[in-house]
Amino acid sequence: MIMKYDIVVIGGGAGGFTACLEAKRLYPDKSVLMIRRDEHTLIPCAIPYIAGALGGDLNKNILPDSPLKDSGVEILIDEVVKIDRESKTVETKNGKVIGYDKLILALGSTSIIPKPLQTDLENVFIMNKSYNYVKKLIEAIKESDKIVVVGGGVAGVEFTDDMIRLGKNISIVEILPNILLLNFDEEIASIAADKLKEAGVKLYTNTSVTGYIGEGGRVKGVKLSNGTVLDADMVLITIGVKPNSGLAAEAGLKIAENGAIEVDEYMRTSDPNIYAIGDCALKRDIFTGSPAPYLLASVAAYEARIAVENLYGVKSVKPFKGIIPVLLTTIRGLCFGAAGLIESTAKRYGIEYVKETHETVDIHPGTLTTPNKITMKMLFSSKNYRLLGVQAVGGKSISELINLLAFAISRGVNIYDLHMLPYGTQPYLTASPIAYPVPNIASKILKRIFSSN
Amino acid sequence: MIMKYDIVVIGGGAGGFTACLEAKRLYPDKSVLMIRRDEHTLIPCAIPYIAGALGGDLNKNILPDSPLKDSGVEILIDEVVKIDRESKTVETKNGKVIGYDKLILALGSTSIIPKPLQTDLENVFIMNKSYNYVKKLIEAIKESDKIVVVGGGVAGVEFTDDMIRLGKNISIVEILPNILLLNFDEEIASIAADKLKEAGVKLYTNTSVTGYIGEGGRVKGVKLSNGTVLDADMVLITIGVKPNSGLAAEAGLKIAENGAIEVDEYMRTSDPNIYAIGDCALKRDIFTGSPAPYLLASVAAYEARIAVENLYGVKSVKPFKGIIPVLLTTIRGLCFGAAGLIESTAKRYGIEYVKETHETVDIHPGTLTTPNKITMKMLFSSKNYRLLGVQAVGGKSISELINLLAFAISRGVNIYDLHMLPYGTQPYLTASPIAYPVPNIASKILKRIFSSN
Repeated sequence: MIMKYDIVVIGGGAGGFTACLEAKRLYPDKSVLMIRRDEHTLIPCAIPYIAGALGGDLNKNILPDSPLKDSGVEILIDEVVKIDRESKTVETKNGKVIGYDKLILALGSTSIIPKPLQTDLENVFIMNKSYNYVKKLIEAIKESDKIVVVGGGVAGVEFTDDMIRLGKNISIVEILPNILLLNFDEEIASIAADKLKEAGVKLYTNTSVTGYIGEGGRVKGVKLSNGTVLDADMVLITIGVKPNSGLAAEAGLKIAENGAIEVDEYMRTSDPNIYAIGDCALKRDIFTGSPAPYLLASVAAYEARIAVENLYGVKSVKPFKGIIPVLLTTIRGLCFGAAGLIESTAKRYGIEYVKETHETVDIHPGTLTTPNKITMKMLFSSKNYRLLGVQAVGGKSISELINLLAFAISRGVNIYDLHMLPYGTQPYLTASPIAYPVPNIASKILKRIFSSN
Repeated sequence: MIMKYDIVVIGGGAGGFTACLEAKRLYPDKSVLMIRRDEHTLIPCAIPYIAGALGGDLNKNILPDSPLKDSGVEILIDEVVKIDRESKTVETKNGKVIGYDKLILALGSTSIIPKPLQTDLENVFIMNKSYNYVKKLIEAIKESDKIVVVGGGVAGVEFTDDMIRLGKNISIVEILPNILLLNFDEEIASIAADKLKEAGVKLYTNTSVTGYIGEGGRVKGVKLSNGTVLDADMVLITIGVKPNSGLAAEAGLKIAENGAIEVDEYMRTSDPNIYAIGDCALKRDIFTGSPAPYLLASVAAYEARIAVENLYGVKSVKPFKGIIPVLLTTIRGLCFGAAGLIESTAKRYGIEYVKETHETVDIHPGTLTTPNKITMKMLFSSKNYRLLGVQAVGGKSISELINLLAFAISRGVNIYDLHMLPYGTQPYLTASPIAYPVPNIASKILKRIFSSN
């Protein structure tokens, strides 16, 4: 007997979860099935906080199934091993065959492990989102004192920030000249680096791991390209991921050069009845149109909404093409955010830009309570002064302020629009109306435009 | 001898201050003079917090002159008593005559005191922004136990929230059915009202003050329209303001029916060399074009930037006409924000709308630290689904999220745009990508659109 559903979603992460909820919301009469491998789905963006802030209790970090069940989504815990596009069915590891009318692939991504980092030694861990693996990782963190984190990207830094709470001795090994340089320019990244150093973290930048020192099957040390050997009770590798597109490739769907499943701007694959979203799907940068690795839960949820909205014919023409990367994180209580292009990306793509920075505080007057300093930096096209990117450090309100500017980027606004940004302010909540960073940066750029005429 | 400046700004509040800074930034070669009445300018939005949070120290709440002086703005402490448009000069109380090429009026507003509230009794205070008056107000608050606040608008509520910290017994008298109803719909306002009641504040709604009980020249009680008499050691009146347009009217500038100085969308008065900004200048609502009393420091600073940018000819054509009111406040640590239309305003102008609400939390998973519940409500045009207004309650991140949506309103976005809002999320900083309130409200409305086809 073949079960048949109108909409089948493969994957239970932020993309798959959102797709199922949206599908039942927009098409309440359609039957929706989620197929996922794991009994429990961890909330991916909170995984770095499991050991310290979540107290080692993994159950505090599980996506509850109740919203799915309450809205009528069925759930099958199983693994899809084949997609048959001709019969419009998927086959599972347990031998089930399930028919679909529309299929949404939310297959996620897997960590990349380059040769020198591969090992059978115990206590070498790799970023992984499965419940049982993360459970072992938590135990290892608790039992270790000297921890080496390989990769100073956001995941590595967030894990580090969490493990500092447990009093661990942590080293970060980063191949680039500083941590976080894929998301922030040097002057912003260095604020984060200083915060970690203040807390006792050792940073080894411009450095890679060339091998391990083992003893009795357990890792005891890490060899670095600069000749240093770091003592280690455990190693955590967080150096990048690749899209899970194998299933799609075997089904003959078009795969992009970077390994992601090809999709159009409505998240449709080369098969009109199959959509792909999240880490497994191709993303294109909004400015360059180039494939871009914006593997974020927020992007997955965003793409889920686009896919579902247009599942039965294109219902809405998109106001913009491509993805704006929006990254938010917090390090030692400071908030870091970025949206759009940073300088290194702009240079790589030959996009000419002008930049400007403004400093202020996040409450006014600063004597009211303890303010956080805000540092905001923006990039604009040097020809038409369109907003290209923003980075900021400050208190928690930075998060939605970056989202505001991500939206501004998506709408193609320029310096004149930002100078006339409407906004509210309040002493306890924001910078003062005089010092609000967005129009102030705009007016610094306007000054150059005015004086050049 | 007549001193002459290129740009003369009358007023030292958020509008005047910003205008001076912007003028020197955009036109560094022009001479700029600020003329203001008071030696010290208080930061207007922080005045409600002077007694409690600022510890009674007024000097913690002064706009520093250093940014003005550092940028080359000259300051004259004096009062302008006449504008002579023919000779392009202003005359001051101290007998100075000062020439201008461009004049910017940032004259502010004054409290309205209806007949039954007028009195010579000591210890009856009126919202006022001058240093010496506020100094007396602080002393009175400290010495009083039973305080009656007349007017449950934002100012009255913020004063109340601050005075609660000092352990005062506070009553609020409000003529409308609840506090804050000019800025929020009932279900949001009632959350604020409950917070104040929990803290022991007594609310007298649907009620007005009909007179006072005095003793030895001091107020001892307040008579209410419902017959109640409230004991009072002091009374604080916060029931609305009117634009200071007398000087402009005497100079023959066009005054609008509501008493504000008429300006076009570039803040130009009926005299092409005179601009008006902030509380004294006419504001029109972005949706209705009707005169609207959006007397906010953030609006004044916004208008200052528009005025200065277009001071020597229109440099930028505005992408939108009219003002979006954006209000942010915090009550007992909860943040309240609103932008655009609320239901009562929409009804008054006959604007047909649909509404939707979403509840979530401001961090994810909620087990990470103590989350704030977010309640967000949006209004859309029932015909073209353009965003009309938003209200929200939650943690501090609500403030910039409301600013995001104010910007969305200003760009005329509709439900499809909001469903495809790009945004970043982070466990410590925002709602989860699945529960982020904006696209979720959008999808609830989309559901109705989809099911009606």
